[in-house]
Amino acid sequence: MTVKQERAVLTREKIIAGAADVFYRQGFGGATLSDITAAAGVTKGALYFHFQSKEHVALAVIEAEHEIATAAATAILDTTTGPLESMLRLCSDLAGRLTTDPIVRAGIRLTTETSTFDRSMARPYEDWLATFEALTLAATEAGELRAGTDAEKLAHFIIPAFTGVQMVSDVFTERADLRRRVREMWEILLPAIVPPENQNSIEWMLEAAFPIR
Amino acid sequence: MTVKQERAVLTREKIIAGAADVFYRQGFGGATLSDITAAAGVTKGALYFHFQSKEHVALAVIEAEHEIATAAATAILDTTTGPLESMLRLCSDLAGRLTTDPIVRAGIRLTTETSTFDRSMARPYEDWLATFEALTLAATEAGELRAGTDAEKLAHFIIPAFTGVQMVSDVFTERADLRRRVREMWEILLPAIVPPENQNSIEWMLEAAFPIR
Repeated sequence: MTVKQERAVLTREKIIAGAADVFYRQGFGGATLSDITAAAGVTKGALYFHFQSKEHVALAVIEAEHEIATAAATAILDTTTGPLESMLRLCSDLAGRLTTDPIVRAGIRLTTETSTFDRSMARPYEDWLATFEALTLAATEAGELRAGTDAEKLAHFIIPAFTGVQMVSDVFTERADLRRRVREMWEILLPAIVPPENQNSIEWMLEAAFPIR
Repeated sequence: MTVKQERAVLTREKIIAGAADVFYRQGFGGATLSDITAAAGVTKGALYFHFQSKEHVALAVIEAEHEIATAAATAILDTTTGPLESMLRLCSDLAGRLTTDPIVRAGIRLTTETSTFDRSMARPYEDWLATFEALTLAATEAGELRAGTDAEKLAHFIIPAFTGVQMVSDVFTERADLRRRVREMWEILLPAIVPPENQNSIEWMLEAAFPIR
């Protein structure tokens, strides 16, 4: 890369970081391009060099969030020993990122704020649903979940439930209680889905994925 | 009421109905006052006679939704025989209204679209959380839920989970599958929260609250 290209990449990253802060605080509807250039410390000309519109900036933030979340998920899937542990750790990891990573929390906020992105909205949900459906199937085959567990139905409850939990946590505590609420979600769910003979390992599974710190 | 007052009430209702359609389709950010006057069939002057701003119209839609939902909830609480049945029927009823009542679906959409209403956002959740916490407590005391059920924790999972389920159903099917998904949520939850001796009445409870039509 030439110096000029490197500078362009850096400017693009600065815009995405600035935009993430603005979108997280003000939402898509409440954010203006002036807010974004001010937060990013770039000129309007620099912004228009990289993005045609506010919608394009927002899509870039969602894309950046999706890349971060996908990389993190891949790392987790590579290092866990079983599919149920993967499900818990994916939820725990995303809960952590939603409280600390400015791009992740902005991307998820834009995703849940359906108003302006109706067409691109379904994609992130589809990826999570597919991942959790595959993990549910694998966990059932491995005997970690009860025999006969309906993978589509369970995955299609866990992902929307997680979505709602992070939203309500955002409304009440700006996600300060998110990790605890996600742990509670699993405290309620696990006794229903784990086979009777594994009930006494639930506490251990929860503690491994959501250590109380 | 004088004829003039009656006409003013009717105009206000027309504006709320028109605004509900626009907000549901376009979200708060995507809706303009011109869209609302066009959908309501009123002049801009008539709109400004009743509302100072788009935000005020949106708050009136949320308020109208809250009145409808509260009246419906009161009727259910008056006619059910037990607190657990109340919880199921409240969810079923709201799922039905979210698919058929234009004001309810617009009000809930505006509520979940946090961007513009941060201060007024928490109120509808607080009401639902308080209702479900009281019902969970009563159901536990009545032996309909397992002894030792943590009412705050369970209510604080059911309400966010329902919120997420209706959102994701909106994204994928414009809520066409909502009743089924809410039933599935309870199919997963009930075995975890109902005491062992009542497990065989789960199917009956589900069928009563969510008849497969």
